[in-house]
Amino acid sequence: MENILQAEKQLEIRFSEIDMMQVVWHGAYPLYLEDAREAFGEKYGLSYRRYINEMIFAPIVEMKIDYKRPISYGMKPVVKITYCPCDAAKIIFDYEIADPASGQLFCKARTVQVFMDRNYNLLWDSPDFYTDWKKAMSLI
Amino acid sequence: MENILQAEKQLEIRFSEIDMMQVVWHGAYPLYLEDAREAFGEKYGLSYRRYINEMIFAPIVEMKIDYKRPISYGMKPVVKITYCPCDAAKIIFDYEIADPASGQLFCKARTVQVFMDRNYNLLWDSPDFYTDWKKAMSLI
Amino acid sequence: MENILQAEKQLEIRFSEIDMMQVVWHGAYPLYLEDAREAFGEKYGLSYRRYINEMIFAPIVEMKIDYKRPISYGMKPVVKITYCPCDAAKIIFDYEIADPASGQLFCKARTVQVFMDRNYNLLWDSPDFYTDWKKAMSLI
Amino acid sequence: MENILQAEKQLEIRFSEIDMMQVVWHGAYPLYLEDAREAFGEKYGLSYRRYINEMIFAPIVEMKIDYKRPISYGMKPVVKITYCPCDAAKIIFDYEIADPASGQLFCKARTVQVFMDRNYNLLWDSPDFYTDWKKAMSLI
Repeated sequence: MENILQAEKQLEIRFSEIDMMQVVWHGAYPLYLEDAREAFGEKYGLSYRRYINEMIFAPIVEMKIDYKRPISYGMKPVVKITYCPCDAAKIIFDYEIADPASGQLFCKARTVQVFMDRNYNLLWDSPDFYTDWKKAMSLI
Repeated sequence: MENILQAEKQLEIRFSEIDMMQVVWHGAYPLYLEDAREAFGEKYGLSYRRYINEMIFAPIVEMKIDYKRPISYGMKPVVKITYCPCDAAKIIFDYEIADPASGQLFCKARTVQVFMDRNYNLLWDSPDFYTDWKKAMSLI
Repeated sequence: MENILQAEKQLEIRFSEIDMMQVVWHGAYPLYLEDAREAFGEKYGLSYRRYINEMIFAPIVEMKIDYKRPISYGMKPVVKITYCPCDAAKIIFDYEIADPASGQLFCKARTVQVFMDRNYNLLWDSPDFYTDWKKAMSLI
Repeated sequence: MENILQAEKQLEIRFSEIDMMQVVWHGAYPLYLEDAREAFGEKYGLSYRRYINEMIFAPIVEMKIDYKRPISYGMKPVVKITYCPCDAAKIIFDYEIADPASGQLFCKARTVQVFMDRNYNLLWDSPDFYTDWKKAMSLI
């Protein structure tokens, strides 16, 4: 049975993220997803710092965001990030932004990352440090 | 036969949009899509200003971005936006960001917008000003 | 003797705030100052929400930032905000961003806000809710 | 008599730069100043690309912005950047954002940049490429 890796992060809605319609600007959500990946990385030892040390990039090649309800200033939503295991040399995350008090769902999202070396060449196989991490997480 | 509505906009890559990996940060692309919608609105008379005057919001409810190649500082990519006709009370746009000189494709994207009134209630039917615009564009 | 009002906020440096020079982009600091004002407002009951309820704006009319040392990704700086009492209908804050562990100073800043009504007319006198707040804080 | 170096840039106000108060967020102005420096660099051959090639950073160490009037969505302001000659190893620019049609002034600003090598060590003397540029511009 597979190990489910999840992390959560309380978002802080900044005044500057609110747009003319008095709700969070749709283009601010990638920041929240980034915050979630940071929280995941810290919890499970897979931070940007690690990639940098390994001279590996993990750029996002796909991002899909479904906006379910607007987020207003003063709300305290939580982003939950879930690791989606896959065999390919990719990192896939699913995200949900919701209000833990009311259970209201604001957003669902998915990102896909691949691996590149310093010269922006795609790596077809997962780099060793990532394979080692998957083993340590009992994912393979 | 359907009228194809398209607009283009020369992007200016800002220094601040470049990230630690020396390429445009993935979260900056929503700005480029927004620039494209602005260019479309100006060309075809469907600007944010219009929505505001009509007391209508057209929030983005779906955004999907496929990053094909990284964009570096100094590049001069062009975003092309194409209106995707649909019968529902939605506005759907497809986008391509490419280098006109080399023909290199950097990004494909799609956004879906719906209509809401000032109280954030979803409008199930297109507002009149939008239906009038579709008629004027020979879309219906 | 005057009451000194101060608040602190641990900053989280986002990947996207790092620029091509591998340090926090200078244009990201206004966000940190905003975070500090939020923290101050929460601590002392002077939040944006309050202004909005009172139909008052408090736009920034001056911002001065002195960058002393670059902030790198992974650092954990703290922003300290200090209220600067003044008799005029203004809100003045001083800021320091520093590393509490090493004592290194990254940045000093100041912002000045004035009061405006909904029609962007400058208010020459402090609004009542602000005067009441100053009294409650033993500032006058 | 001194040669006055100036450049101008028509700003495009983005929807996302507008805040809850329906005017441009104060934190967006550093982007406009950056746009102005880009325009200056292109006009006079002093681009970021040049610094990068020379392995030199020119970080901003001071930024002072005076906000005179709010900028609204739909306005077409122009930023004018003026080079301020100085003997020290610094680059100083003054900025004005105004509406060319009405002459209304929205903002005045100043930035100060210094020179650093790749290891973030301050350079007390101007790098050769900058001194050469000043000569070519008849500034020294």
